[in-house]
Amino acid sequence: MSTEVDRLVARIRPPDAAIRQAARQRQDRLTKPPGSLGRLEDVAVQVAAILGSERPSPRGKALIIAAADHGVVAEGVSGYPQAVTGQMVRNFLAGGAAINALARQAGVRLTIVDAGIAARPPDHPQLRRLSFGPGTENIARGPAMTRAQAEGCILAGIELAREAADSGVDLIGIGDMGIGNTTAAAAVTAAITGHSAAVTTGRGTGRSDAQLDDKANVVRRAIEVNRPNPGDGWDVLAHVGGYELGVLAGVILGGALARRVVVLDGFICGAAALVAHRICPTAIDFCIAGHRSAERGHALILDHLDLEPLLDLELRLGEGSGAVLAMGLIEAGAACLAEMSTFDEAGVSDAGAS
Amino acid sequence: MSTEVDRLVARIRPPDAAIRQAARQRQDRLTKPPGSLGRLEDVAVQVAAILGSERPSPRGKALIIAAADHGVVAEGVSGYPQAVTGQMVRNFLAGGAAINALARQAGVRLTIVDAGIAARPPDHPQLRRLSFGPGTENIARGPAMTRAQAEGCILAGIELAREAADSGVDLIGIGDMGIGNTTAAAAVTAAITGHSAAVTTGRGTGRSDAQLDDKANVVRRAIEVNRPNPGDGWDVLAHVGGYELGVLAGVILGGALARRVVVLDGFICGAAALVAHRICPTAIDFCIAGHRSAERGHALILDHLDLEPLLDLELRLGEGSGAVLAMGLIEAGAACLAEMSTFDEAGVSDAGAS
Repeated sequence: MSTEVDRLVARIRPPDAAIRQAARQRQDRLTKPPGSLGRLEDVAVQVAAILGSERPSPRGKALIIAAADHGVVAEGVSGYPQAVTGQMVRNFLAGGAAINALARQAGVRLTIVDAGIAARPPDHPQLRRLSFGPGTENIARGPAMTRAQAEGCILAGIELAREAADSGVDLIGIGDMGIGNTTAAAAVTAAITGHSAAVTTGRGTGRSDAQLDDKANVVRRAIEVNRPNPGDGWDVLAHVGGYELGVLAGVILGGALARRVVVLDGFICGAAALVAHRICPTAIDFCIAGHRSAERGHALILDHLDLEPLLDLELRLGEGSGAVLAMGLIEAGAACLAEMSTFDEAGVSDAGAS
Repeated sequence: MSTEVDRLVARIRPPDAAIRQAARQRQDRLTKPPGSLGRLEDVAVQVAAILGSERPSPRGKALIIAAADHGVVAEGVSGYPQAVTGQMVRNFLAGGAAINALARQAGVRLTIVDAGIAARPPDHPQLRRLSFGPGTENIARGPAMTRAQAEGCILAGIELAREAADSGVDLIGIGDMGIGNTTAAAAVTAAITGHSAAVTTGRGTGRSDAQLDDKANVVRRAIEVNRPNPGDGWDVLAHVGGYELGVLAGVILGGALARRVVVLDGFICGAAALVAHRICPTAIDFCIAGHRSAERGHALILDHLDLEPLLDLELRLGEGSGAVLAMGLIEAGAACLAEMSTFDEAGVSDAGAS
């Protein structure tokens, strides 16, 4: 689809299998009953294989939040006015949103990306302006964006990941902001997984039963009008996606290319991962699902990608909140693998677990 | 049962209802769709009510790990030799165990308590030696300890919590170490909740099916031989408990008395919470369940105490691992409540969620 992206993506190699094996063996010699650290053991082994060290020690943490508007809000799919996308980005830049509190507490650096906000926020050192347009077109009536815009989003995302990696970041979280984007994500999920709009569409910021039916009908219409090709990530992105969704898919691809750990947030990031997976399946091996969102379609995405989320806190905020919360657990798992003593080193009897 | 404990426990008051109400109202004015932070919203409100501020900012974090031996290991209930309790305590003091890696990563201060280890570890600045005996008696044949020992454990735990609180700790985690202690915890759980030994007994560090049957029979025998009074926490603790279990029950009571947040780990801490609940039900209002352990009986305890765990990572290590991992989430929830802007402050339209 894109010569430039094809060229980059062709260089993605899986996480290191030999390191994975060595990390697993080390895991079983550490002073704990085998398997007793549960999910953290697999996460630590994955991080080891990604970062290329059987005793992984992730350095910097960053979160890339891509924000954009969606023409489909004209169909009345959200309870918030479109202006809230830009207002919330200003709130991010002023430090007053949930993600600011979470990132401060966890020591995570924030980059906010204007991927196409209708009401452009003012310049700010933390704001990266890509602005592929003043929001996508209305997917209920036609394609969200052109192929060139889709390519621009993905390439920009790859570049953002490369910059983060070059600046010493080993855990790259991704998050989203965009009024109307659960509608686009529901359409992407329906298109790629083959599930019906009735099950991929959720309540978003808080739709009632009747409003949820209307929203699912809009998603159904978007699929019927656009007929995206389920096997082609580019086609799905351009027809029913969103600018932030494309940028985030690019960050996933770029993270895999740079061999960094990509920590996914919820439903929107999951839809971006579906797109990235269609472009390069191996990229998903570099992803950790931060949490399972309360938004209905997210569980379908996690199943489709065979990802097991770390947290299940009924979050449905977006902004990268679940990704940032999960980073502490990922670091914790890595710290155990890297720092614990073996039975031999500690002089502890390893008679058990039989 | 104990005049001294009775006198202290009578002073425990519930978390502040007015602050709880104010915190809940503030929660709904913050720049996010109502309820979108899921479980973190309730946790933050609980922390606010405990610490007495609608914008809570928990200060220090500490973990108190109580370690002790159990005479019931004579029945062959564990795959590890009894010596491992003392060996693992040495490993804690040397910094090589999982909990050391987790606590370092999370900035949590560790206090290790010898509540009665057969092979006494050497003196160490981080080690508090209480030593109520060289392990409990074999509960399959008679009471674990005397009433005086049970009282000593609880009082010592109350004092440990008071010391932590006085030193500026707002989040008090609790953890355990003790070969054989899942057998004692299964007996305590059966005694207090009324569930049978068949469902309260789990695999511990890794029992096979046949070994699990044998272990459940030992728990059944412990209940038959001792006939603990289900309504009397003291009676259950003395008959089928353990020294570390008593100390941890004391820390819960002391945490409530000092109005601090007590973060529970898994099955052993849950059994301690059952004992504390029988002595003073209000103390549980100061507790947050860090995680749901893979150890079978833990879910029964959480149900009985109406506690919803934050994490579900299939951990079954003990040592306070799940408590320390959950502390970051508790701080994150509190940070959102304390630091986020309201819709008015941020100039964000609050039209939605309708």
